[in-house]
Amino acid sequence: MDRRSFLRTSAIGGSAAAATSLAAPAYAAGHRTLTMVTTWGRGLAGVFDAAQKVADDINAMSDGTLTVDVKAGGELVGPFEVFDAVTAGQADMYHAADYYFGGQHPGYFYMTSVPFGMTAQELLNWYEHGGGRGFHDELGEIFGLKSFLAGNTGAQAGGWFRKEISGPEDFNGLKFRMPGMGGEVLGKLGASVQNLPGAEVYQALASGAIDGTEWIGPWADEKAGFQEITKFYYTAGMHEPGAALTLATNLDVFNELTPAQQKIIEVAAGNTHQWSLAQFLNNNGSALQRLQSGGVKVLEFPDSVWDAMGAAAAEVKDQYAGDDLYDRLRASYESSQAASSGWLTRSEGAYRAQRDRVTG
Amino acid sequence: MDRRSFLRTSAIGGSAAAATSLAAPAYAAGHRTLTMVTTWGRGLAGVFDAAQKVADDINAMSDGTLTVDVKAGGELVGPFEVFDAVTAGQADMYHAADYYFGGQHPGYFYMTSVPFGMTAQELLNWYEHGGGRGFHDELGEIFGLKSFLAGNTGAQAGGWFRKEISGPEDFNGLKFRMPGMGGEVLGKLGASVQNLPGAEVYQALASGAIDGTEWIGPWADEKAGFQEITKFYYTAGMHEPGAALTLATNLDVFNELTPAQQKIIEVAAGNTHQWSLAQFLNNNGSALQRLQSGGVKVLEFPDSVWDAMGAAAAEVKDQYAGDDLYDRLRASYESSQAASSGWLTRSEGAYRAQRDRVTG
Repeated sequence: MDRRSFLRTSAIGGSAAAATSLAAPAYAAGHRTLTMVTTWGRGLAGVFDAAQKVADDINAMSDGTLTVDVKAGGELVGPFEVFDAVTAGQADMYHAADYYFGGQHPGYFYMTSVPFGMTAQELLNWYEHGGGRGFHDELGEIFGLKSFLAGNTGAQAGGWFRKEISGPEDFNGLKFRMPGMGGEVLGKLGASVQNLPGAEVYQALASGAIDGTEWIGPWADEKAGFQEITKFYYTAGMHEPGAALTLATNLDVFNELTPAQQKIIEVAAGNTHQWSLAQFLNNNGSALQRLQSGGVKVLEFPDSVWDAMGAAAAEVKDQYAGDDLYDRLRASYESSQAASSGWLTRSEGAYRAQRDRVTG
Repeated sequence: MDRRSFLRTSAIGGSAAAATSLAAPAYAAGHRTLTMVTTWGRGLAGVFDAAQKVADDINAMSDGTLTVDVKAGGELVGPFEVFDAVTAGQADMYHAADYYFGGQHPGYFYMTSVPFGMTAQELLNWYEHGGGRGFHDELGEIFGLKSFLAGNTGAQAGGWFRKEISGPEDFNGLKFRMPGMGGEVLGKLGASVQNLPGAEVYQALASGAIDGTEWIGPWADEKAGFQEITKFYYTAGMHEPGAALTLATNLDVFNELTPAQQKIIEVAAGNTHQWSLAQFLNNNGSALQRLQSGGVKVLEFPDSVWDAMGAAAAEVKDQYAGDDLYDRLRASYESSQAASSGWLTRSEGAYRAQRDRVTG
């Protein structure tokens, strides 16, 4: 899995090599534009907002020494080409969900979200204080990236269907959009899974290229307009219980920045993570009410579906076993999940149950 | 409640007046030390860490133009004197929990946590995207402060008792440490409530000056050593379901800073909020296991106690009604809580229940 030597070679003649041939002090003293490529269509609710927010804050805090220039998917490179563009030095940064790059290394699935994995808060506990950030750095060393979590959608909705789901057999033959390990889980249930960038999902659903889709949650889904085509909406899902977004900078570019500029990128990303999560969660409730008023039927998967997904998720995770980094990362993640979850159930969970009971 | 004119007058001759007599451009071009006073004993787990983290990040991002100098409670002013010290310009910033200053304006209770109120995530949804930050600014206009959330303990534990609690009558006559509206709730149940700064709680408990106490949660409580004195520990509580910490800067001082420096303080505070919350939540699980292994009996309050607390909490909140700002703030907070809670129950709550059921 160590692509470092490959990347160092392939970048020769590319813009990364060109960049490093300039003297670093020239950047440090003056002004530098960093091109950020993203997986998101321009203005795509929540996800593009997070890319813009982290860019704006970096620009404002650096007092003119850095200007991050945000490109929507397709403006410079395609939505899923951002990883290669930044590792090769064609762009300086990307904002994306790292599970799109699980094919580069399966550890990246965990940097966004995995089926039956951590909620946003649990992920953050691990990332900030349980070793998760170190694994993100270790992955970055392989690919020449310095990565930070910089957004989170919260627990994603199970998705949009043309008909009600009564058991796991209803996924057999279903053409469904779902990225990451979640998509692999649906594949084990017999679904024909596609991984489309957000900006292309509506058209695929409208044309019948796919039978159903998940995207994010009520607010972003409503803006995407899926309720115009499908009417059965499952609010809870197993696939992305707290999907993080990543800001990744080309490692050579990052190392050329001053310590203050590096810290600005790190702290801006962290603040954007919580700002973004709050944006999704603040807007989902009212959006769900509007969807329901508009005739969308809001449902939950039956237990039999959750059970089948649970068995398939364990298989999917085991498939990648044997890679040292993957195995260490997964063990750390699962141990942290158990610890975080235990306390949250006991404290916030017990509190919420009593609050609901007492205040009605 | 408008103390502004008082403050403008009382600051004459103090250091705020001295500071503003210097030309602002002198600060902008050069280096400035900001003195931060805190409510925390030096090194106090979690809370002092958050104060130090936000200071370190401001210092690192400002590239030498700002140096935040962190003072523990008592080093420059007493733990509960930090609010007056910063409004008067005796210090530049404070890091504290704003509910300590509910006597200045009851809106400050909501900027930390109120009984049967929001969890940390719900609070953040409101603060970032539901109007909460605007209320913090409005309170700051009265007292000459620019405030940002900069830490969170998560849902706090119900506390430490010398004997088991079997009903609300067990609080009658109990000498208990609990700040904020939570303390007022226990007062309605007949408790004799004291508000002690963290560094003084252990001694008060050991000497018998109080019968019991809440502090934060397993990790911080274990470090404080309460398990050496009391053995009954209630993990869920009604009083602080997600207690935020605040970084507040003297408004005149803040307005003298450059836009980049102002943004650095804002973003550093936001990032520290999530870093701090993750620190508490990451450490609580293992700490609880150690406490249990050491002989602490871990319990939950019976429903009768929660019911009595619920009735008392409603009374306490109503007591402050009639102040325009308080009424608007409370209405905004409660409306946001209902919306956030509804979606979180439906998505993350449903997911967690299925995850626990499927994965055991």
